[in-house]
This record gives sequence, C-alpha cells and structure tokens, in this order.
Amino acid sequence: MTLPISFLSDFGHEDEFVGVVHGVLAKLAPESRVIDIGHAISPGNVRAGALALVRAIQYLPEGVCLAVIDPGVGSSRRALAAVTDWGFFVGPDNGLLSPAVAMTGGASQIVSIENPEAMIPSPGETFHGRDIFAPAAALLASGEATLDDLGPVVSGDEVTPLLLPLTQVDDGRVIGEAWWVDRFGNAQTNISPDDLMAVGLEPGQMVTTRVGAVVHNIPWVRAYSEVAEGEGLIHVDSAGLMAIAVRSGRADETFNLFEGVAVTLAGRR
Amino acid sequence: MTLPISFLSDFGHEDEFVGVVHGVLAKLAPESRVIDIGHAISPGNVRAGALALVRAIQYLPEGVCLAVIDPGVGSSRRALAAVTDWGFFVGPDNGLLSPAVAMTGGASQIVSIENPEAMIPSPGETFHGRDIFAPAAALLASGEATLDDLGPVVSGDEVTPLLLPLTQVDDGRVIGEAWWVDRFGNAQTNISPDDLMAVGLEPGQMVTTRVGAVVHNIPWVRAYSEVAEGEGLIHVDSAGLMAIAVRSGRADETFNLFEGVAVTLAGRR
Amino acid sequence: MTLPISFLSDFGHEDEFVGVVHGVLAKLAPESRVIDIGHAISPGNVRAGALALVRAIQYLPEGVCLAVIDPGVGSSRRALAAVTDWGFFVGPDNGLLSPAVAMTGGASQIVSIENPEAMIPSPGETFHGRDIFAPAAALLASGEATLDDLGPVVSGDEVTPLLLPLTQVDDGRVIGEAWWVDRFGNAQTNISPDDLMAVGLEPGQMVTTRVGAVVHNIPWVRAYSEVAEGEGLIHVDSAGLMAIAVRSGRADETFNLFEGVAVTLAGRR
Repeated sequence: MTLPISFLSDFGHEDEFVGVVHGVLAKLAPESRVIDIGHAISPGNVRAGALALVRAIQYLPEGVCLAVIDPGVGSSRRALAAVTDWGFFVGPDNGLLSPAVAMTGGASQIVSIENPEAMIPSPGETFHGRDIFAPAAALLASGEATLDDLGPVVSGDEVTPLLLPLTQVDDGRVIGEAWWVDRFGNAQTNISPDDLMAVGLEPGQMVTTRVGAVVHNIPWVRAYSEVAEGEGLIHVDSAGLMAIAVRSGRADETFNLFEGVAVTLAGRR
Repeated sequence: MTLPISFLSDFGHEDEFVGVVHGVLAKLAPESRVIDIGHAISPGNVRAGALALVRAIQYLPEGVCLAVIDPGVGSSRRALAAVTDWGFFVGPDNGLLSPAVAMTGGASQIVSIENPEAMIPSPGETFHGRDIFAPAAALLASGEATLDDLGPVVSGDEVTPLLLPLTQVDDGRVIGEAWWVDRFGNAQTNISPDDLMAVGLEPGQMVTTRVGAVVHNIPWVRAYSEVAEGEGLIHVDSAGLMAIAVRSGRADETFNLFEGVAVTLAGRR
Repeated sequence: MTLPISFLSDFGHEDEFVGVVHGVLAKLAPESRVIDIGHAISPGNVRAGALALVRAIQYLPEGVCLAVIDPGVGSSRRALAAVTDWGFFVGPDNGLLSPAVAMTGGASQIVSIENPEAMIPSPGETFHGRDIFAPAAALLASGEATLDDLGPVVSGDEVTPLLLPLTQVDDGRVIGEAWWVDRFGNAQTNISPDDLMAVGLEPGQMVTTRVGAVVHNIPWVRAYSEVAEGEGLIHVDSAGLMAIAVRSGRADETFNLFEGVAVTLAGRR
C-alpha cells in the first residue's frame, strides 16, 4: 500500500521548513506522491487553514492529509491522527482538521500520537511538523504503521472542534461574514445560495449588500461577463458559496472587504 | 502512455488554488510527473505568462503544457487544447499559448474543449483551471482522451494571437522595450544581438542606452565580471536577448527599468 | 541507480527559473524525485543558504544536493561537484556547500565541472543553474555520469570555505550573534546549550540577554508553554541551537533581532 500525501501548513516559503518536511516524507515514504495544498496561510491562522482544507479536500487524491498550523506547539495540545472514508488526517488537536474530517464523513477512529518510536528524536520542542506529524503521515502512507501503532484512541468528543460562524436570517436579510479574500481580491462569504433564496432572492436580481456599515447595490449574476468592466457582482463561487467580486478589478479594495468583516445580503426594499 | 505535465498559472501561493489543481491532476493522471513552471505571474498578465512559457518551453520535458492565466474566465472565450511537435498545450484562448505553440512548430490540430464529460461539474463559473483545464491536461497526459474527445476542431486563424512588440531600426538606433524584470533586478529587452549588430554594434563597445527619457552609456560585455562591482552592463541573457544588468546590483533601480518602458540602443555618436 | 535530488536556490518564485531547472532535471533524470529545500533565500546571500543546507541535510534523503546561490556567475569561480558519505553535492565554489559537506563527513572527491558535454549550450553566461549545475546533478542522479566524467579533480584546500562566526566565552558571558530570523519571528543564534552551560547557566534560569546595545532578562525554558502569552523565552530550537522567541508573538519585533546582530548571553550578576 502506498498512499499519496497532501500537505498544508503555515510554514511559508521563506525558510526551509516545507523542504525539510518533504525530506522526511521522502525518506520514510519514498513511493508516495506528495501534493502541496499550500503553505502560505498566515502564521497561526487555524481557521483559514481549516477553510482551505474544506475547500480542497474533495479534489485531492484519497490518501493521507498532513496539516500543520500549530500555534500551540510545545504545549500539552495533542497530536492527532484520524481516519475517515476519504483516508487519514494528521495534525494538531486545535480544530484545524475538524471541518475536513466532518465533511468526509466523520472519523471512524482517532488516536493521540504518543509512540516515541513513530517520531524523530529532536533537540527542541518546536518543529513537530518535522518530528511528529510528518513521520506519522509517512508511516500511514507507506503502510508501515496503523493508527493503533501511533498511540491511544481518543474519543471524538475529546477533540477540539472548530466553531465556524453560522449565517442568520433576520427580517428578510441574511447576516454573515467574509471569511476569505483570495489573491485576486474576491471575497468569499459564509452565505450559501440557499440562504439567499430563503429570503426571496434569485439570480438576476439586485442585492442590497452591507459590508461593515456601508451599503452597496450589487447584482447576483452567473458569470463575470454579465457586468461591465470595473462593476461589482455577487455570484456562486467555485466552492458553492456566495462571493463578491469586481470584473477586471479587486472587490476587496472596491468594497473594503477583509477576512471577518460582517456582510449582510437582502433584497431591495 | 503517460506524459509529464508542466503547469503555469497566475494563481500565486497565498491560496490553495495551485494545490487543488495538483490534486485534480494526481487523481486523473496518477502516473504523471507534474512540474511547476511558476505561479506568481501578476494576476491577469497574459503577456508576461506567454513570455515565461516561451523562455521555458525548450527546457521542459515533452508532454503536456497546462497554462492558466485567464482574466476572461466565465465569458465566452474558448478553452483550447492544441498539439505541436513538442506535445499538448491546454489553456484559455487569449494569446497565452500562442508564442509557445508557434515556437514549437505550430499546432497541427486545435480543439475547443466543450465536452462536459471531460470536465468536473462545478457550482460556479470561476475556476476553469480546476474544472476544465486540469481535467483536459490530465486526460491527455494519461492517454485517456485524444484531442477529438475534448471538443470540436478550431482553425488556427480563429485563435487569439498574442501581439508581441517588434523592434524597429531607425537612423542607426534600435527601438525596443523592456519586457521582463526578474527577481534579481535584471531587465530583459525584446532586442536581439542581431538587431544591435545591424546598427554596427558589437561586444566590447559602449552602447548609448535610452531608458524612457534618460540616456546612459553602458558597455556591451560577455560576462558580469568584465565590469566593476556596481557598474552597469548590457549582455546576451540566458534566453538569447539583450538584457541590462548591474554587477552585484539591481538594474531596475539603477536605471529606472520596468516592464514596458521604452529602451533605445545605439552606438556612440 | 536513481537518486533523489534536493534543490536549494535563491531564484524565488516570481520568475520561471525554478521551474526551468525542474524541467532540465525531469528531462535528464526522469526517474528522480526532486525535493525543493527552498528557493526564497535572499538574492546572493550565500551564508543564509549554507546555514539552511546545514539545518536541512540530515532530514533529506541521501542522493544529490543541488544548491545554486551564485552571485559570481559568469566570473572565474569554479562549478563544483563533490561526494560525501551522504551523497553528491553540486554548486558554485563560493562556500555555499562547505558546511553541509563538512557536516556529512567531508568530501572524498571534488571535481571542477568543466566538461562541455555535461552542460547545456547557452546563448548567455548568467544561468548556470540551468546550463551547468542542473545537468551535472541530473547526470549524477541517473548514474549517467561519475564525478570523473564532469571534470578534473580539485583538492579540498583549493575550495572556498565558509567562515561562520564562532562564539566567544569572555568573563562569564557568551558572545555570539543572531544568524537566522524565521517566518515566525524566531531568532536562531550561533550559541549552543553547551556554551551556556560553560558559563554556569542551565534550563530554568534567567538569562541576561544583550541584543545590540539593549539588555533584556529572558528565561531559558524547554517549551513555549512555560511562559505567558506575549512573554519572551530562550530555548533549544529544532536545530539544537539557542533561539530567542516570544510565545504567541514575534521575537524579531519585540527584541529588535535581525540577521547578524550581536547577541551576548550571561547569567544574572
């Protein structure tokens, strides 16, 4: 058995951290293909990493998902390995893995990685990506270890969840937030097309869009090309959520959108 | 048949876009090696991407070239797949592929990717890299599809060309422009050594170099080490074009060079 | 024989340089796995690259190490290939490889790469990573060439060393410097735990820490979690050296730490 390994972190590309983890994986799972999901999550931003994993997971080859965004490294937080219908998940117990595990059907087994024989001895306590998580991922990918070999079973209700903000429908409005601004300046919200249809909106209509304290009128369209260059639009993005964009422009700059800002969408009054 | 896939985009590394495309390629072409040509082309800069492809293509293993810089995503622009003596090219019909296709002998067949069975169904219309281009590239690489399986044939004169600025020779001067400034601050022009020789210049001579409105005297040398530290030089760069550099320095800052600025080279008067 | 290739450079990700080298490696060593150690070393910073190699080398699969940080490209500096107990090292003769070669037991043979048949012909003299170093690395990895095929033997004392600053113990103090600030703002010094123990310090004690001209009192602890959020700490980092960090913060900003700044550590007076 040789499984591919998909690897997410906040290590960035300035240092050799990502390369060193690739080295450990290549040594311990020489036949496994390794896919970099991305490594430029802002340092310590567990929620951003969890959202990236959820968006990506269905497009990744079934196998092992190694995710390391770990502001609590060196504390008593657990190191986890879990298995779902998709495959194995390895990472810190801080909520990073929770949404992707849930999205792929939930974990049928979770263990706390504690077996020192499955780790690389280290002088320090700060690079568990290299010393604990990568070896565990590689051993699972190569079939050299099972979950039981890594450490004791942990029950699902002992694992740290990730609380993602839910939308609220109130007085004909959907109240949500922007939870991702991508490289192109597009802002993904946590609002679904179903939310909008529940308040009577449909594609082709103008949407009263409040960002923070400022209100804009932006049309709900199916494609960028339905508005003029430089005009704003609301559409269903590639993950199936409502996003705010500007054709040939940047919605973040045009509408002052950033991660976490409140966004309220409603029909015209 | 399993072909390597070389992948260029403007997706950057901030988000998981590149990783998701790698995931799709790994799922549909699990045996194909994937080479990242680069993903940090400035967003939507089709010309910069086309130039990077032309510089890179002869060094890439023959196979499939997947290139996605696609400011017109969601409009009626075509999705193309073509075959040349080098191999397959997959990308949007906006000129991005044209110079590399021409450089590798021209396309013997071009199709418009329209077969929904060769695509990944998607809730949105904004990530054709994942939903249309990556599947097409993977199916061609794995031999699971031919061009004919992807969609109808398009004739070469229906395809969007890329108009690259030509140099002009006028009154003993070569008029061109800077079309790339690299990480090290070196500026590549569109002027060839043959252009300079046509106005009587040769290596070892001083070149009257106009950048925008300012004139500098810069020697044409074969290697950085022929000038002192901090001095400017003009030389034939690794792509065979005239470039302006500064030994142990940055030519962009020293000479105010940037992408698109007019550059005129001539002998001394 | 097919060896993995680990690749370090200062090429960055803005341009296609890294991708072109991957293309050359894939053409000449199609069976070799390629691991990117990192490519964002600041341009021309040979010492930073050498330190990254030393930190990484023990975690990389034995094979070929290709390292290109080459501010002297085009001068008369040699192109080197060497072999140690770890494997082959290929790069410029400027000290970049020296610490990693020494750390892996020293070179049993070193050659100057001069055989034109082992190179890619090029119009220019500026991209030896593509034209000289990558082909040499690929030929060694695929077993198509031995060191003797690449060029004449060079003796170890003809090779450029890298002079790394040593710590000094003086009057109960250890005088060193910060030689790496990572993405998270942690500063690694060149001071070892043994240095500190030689002046009577041990874990759990307060360390009088002079950074430049300013003195701070920072505890030596084993893990971040032993200090409060926002507090500074000194600890043994993942490479076994003393590092200065801030729990849930950035030590570089808190203590004005940067590459090369003098750091003196001592017990309390």
